[in-house]
Amino acid sequence: MTPTLQLAFDLIARRSVTPDDDGCQALMMERLAAAGFNNEELRFEEVENFWSRRGTEGPLVCFAGHTDVVPTGPEGRWSYPPFTPTIVDGLLYGRGAADMKGSLAAMVVACENFVRKHPNHKGSIAFLITSDEEGPAKNGTVKVVETLEARNEKIDMCIVGEPSSTNAVGDVVKNGRRGSLGAVLHVHGIQGHVAYPHLAKNPVHIAAPALAELAAEHWDEGNEFFPATSFQISNINAGTGATNVIPGELEVVFNFRFSTELTADILKERTHAILDKHGLSYDIDWNLSGEPFLTARGPLVEASVQAIKEVTGRDTELSTAGGTSDGRFIAPTGAQVLELGPCNATIHKLDEHIVAEDLDTLTVIYERILELLLA
Amino acid sequence: MTPTLQLAFDLIARRSVTPDDDGCQALMMERLAAAGFNNEELRFEEVENFWSRRGTEGPLVCFAGHTDVVPTGPEGRWSYPPFTPTIVDGLLYGRGAADMKGSLAAMVVACENFVRKHPNHKGSIAFLITSDEEGPAKNGTVKVVETLEARNEKIDMCIVGEPSSTNAVGDVVKNGRRGSLGAVLHVHGIQGHVAYPHLAKNPVHIAAPALAELAAEHWDEGNEFFPATSFQISNINAGTGATNVIPGELEVVFNFRFSTELTADILKERTHAILDKHGLSYDIDWNLSGEPFLTARGPLVEASVQAIKEVTGRDTELSTAGGTSDGRFIAPTGAQVLELGPCNATIHKLDEHIVAEDLDTLTVIYERILELLLA
Ligand SMILES: [Zn+2]
Ligand SMILES: [Zn+2]
Repeated sequence: MTPTLQLAFDLIARRSVTPDDDGCQALMMERLAAAGFNNEELRFEEVENFWSRRGTEGPLVCFAGHTDVVPTGPEGRWSYPPFTPTIVDGLLYGRGAADMKGSLAAMVVACENFVRKHPNHKGSIAFLITSDEEGPAKNGTVKVVETLEARNEKIDMCIVGEPSSTNAVGDVVKNGRRGSLGAVLHVHGIQGHVAYPHLAKNPVHIAAPALAELAAEHWDEGNEFFPATSFQISNINAGTGATNVIPGELEVVFNFRFSTELTADILKERTHAILDKHGLSYDIDWNLSGEPFLTARGPLVEASVQAIKEVTGRDTELSTAGGTSDGRFIAPTGAQVLELGPCNATIHKLDEHIVAEDLDTLTVIYERILELLLA
Repeated sequence: MTPTLQLAFDLIARRSVTPDDDGCQALMMERLAAAGFNNEELRFEEVENFWSRRGTEGPLVCFAGHTDVVPTGPEGRWSYPPFTPTIVDGLLYGRGAADMKGSLAAMVVACENFVRKHPNHKGSIAFLITSDEEGPAKNGTVKVVETLEARNEKIDMCIVGEPSSTNAVGDVVKNGRRGSLGAVLHVHGIQGHVAYPHLAKNPVHIAAPALAELAAEHWDEGNEFFPATSFQISNINAGTGATNVIPGELEVVFNFRFSTELTADILKERTHAILDKHGLSYDIDWNLSGEPFLTARGPLVEASVQAIKEVTGRDTELSTAGGTSDGRFIAPTGAQVLELGPCNATIHKLDEHIVAEDLDTLTVIYERILELLLA
């Protein structure tokens, strides 16, 4: 068993379902302290986080990730117990194998190897680890970043260990993410009886043309790095259940996934313009999960692409597809942010697994990136 | 206390909440038998109904109505106990005072008076009484009408005792009712994650333009007797509650109230044409509550208008507004059907009440109609 696989086993064996850390962070900090890192525990309410840094100079290259995992679902339906890491036919099974205890193990071992070979490396290396990425994400990375910002400690480059790969480790890295803007719209009408429509005002009828226009709108064309901005209604509800009552109010829940061609404020303005054009009486609650971010080609992207090519022979693809990640909290500080981790086909599912030796490959990639940036 | 008010008291005192009759029909039949009517009890499942006829010749003039009442709501919130009829300041309070035990009392007493004066009247007089008008209306008037049809017993003219009046007794009679056609529409899409809209098909987005077109459609212009046909969405629902899931299906419940310019089949065809034009994948369950009916000017309308004018001095208004009534089951047999009863301002409400002496006025109107038609 390689050092990375051994550490991955030790992490997966801990039942760290959000927001429980179950000792994962202590284990990581112990290893990092031995490699010359200074650990700083940063607990916010029930969420454990830590910040660990080796060196005081710039540039600061940070590994970011989370020790928490999503629930297992029915444990009896797993082929192997989810918290008993198991390798069968070269595949490592266990909750968090892909998302993202495997990456955490690879990061720690990569740093151990790098500092052994380069004890006097340039700049600094850091870890930003939370146990609240899969949950509400209120007391995790966002709070650690606030702490760093408050004392003007700047991350220059950040590798997030999210499972970015599709078919083979390193085939895809995420150099950005779309923004996510949610809203709950209430359209006001006047309730009444279907036999007396002139005394009522049906909010479904009033809203239908506006919803049709929102659904048909071309918000942008996307760009080189982002697909076109997408609008989706996730929930729509009106009515008392009775078939003879005209509802008094319509609720519509919708979500934008948007590119760097737009901002949340522009989307809000354009949405309001469409609603207003149709004369709707409404109120709306907006919820911005994250502005989009993009890390263009530059030192971090170049080092990552080169390291992947050298270690695996693969030409990596830069992608911004998929859901949000904690990178959305780090990118706004001005850091270059990139997500690089194992294959994501089985994340959040029963029988989560990865190719076991991909973690050793990932360890070498991470170490090679450090060499290219800090050796 | 007048005979009509005394009988109204006796009926209101019985707790005949749908489908319970609680002895109301027995009381009516006893009185009618004494006046020379032949009673026929027609029980269908748990619903009591009766048919009572005096005479064997045509034309057959029928009084129709229901002994059941809607629930009282919280009895403690009534000013007077709902099943303890009470006259205060000339107003008769009690559940069913307006809808429609007051009318039943007036009908019975009118017939008693009429046959006393005209024991050898022309034609026949009948009563068609159910205890299931306010409920599912499956085992009430519709079944009695089927029974009559099966033996070819034809109602020529029918006065339904529903509270048709608005401000003063006789100011409005209903000479028809709009049709009511309901539907439950399911629009099929493909469920997915909002981050991957290209893998999903949002049924709300697909349906919105079709719903906008249905809501904007002019179905007809109505006619002399009917307002324009009205389309109303009563309920719309889609979504799992999660904000990041594109729903797989949309449910829309809607209802037409339609005039005699259209039929249910035409409305179905036009609805399907709009849904098909927008390329929706859907299924739809139709529910026809009743085709519209209209009793144009003729013997029954003329006699009623004249009787109201003579007794009250009022010029009555012919109206087809409002909800459905059991007239929808009688009119298709070819009968002239007209609804004439007390004021409806408080029906189905707490403190249901009418002007007490309106029942005596109504008794004289009913009797005068019989005279004009059968004396
Ligand atoms: Zn993750
Ligand atoms: Zn009624």
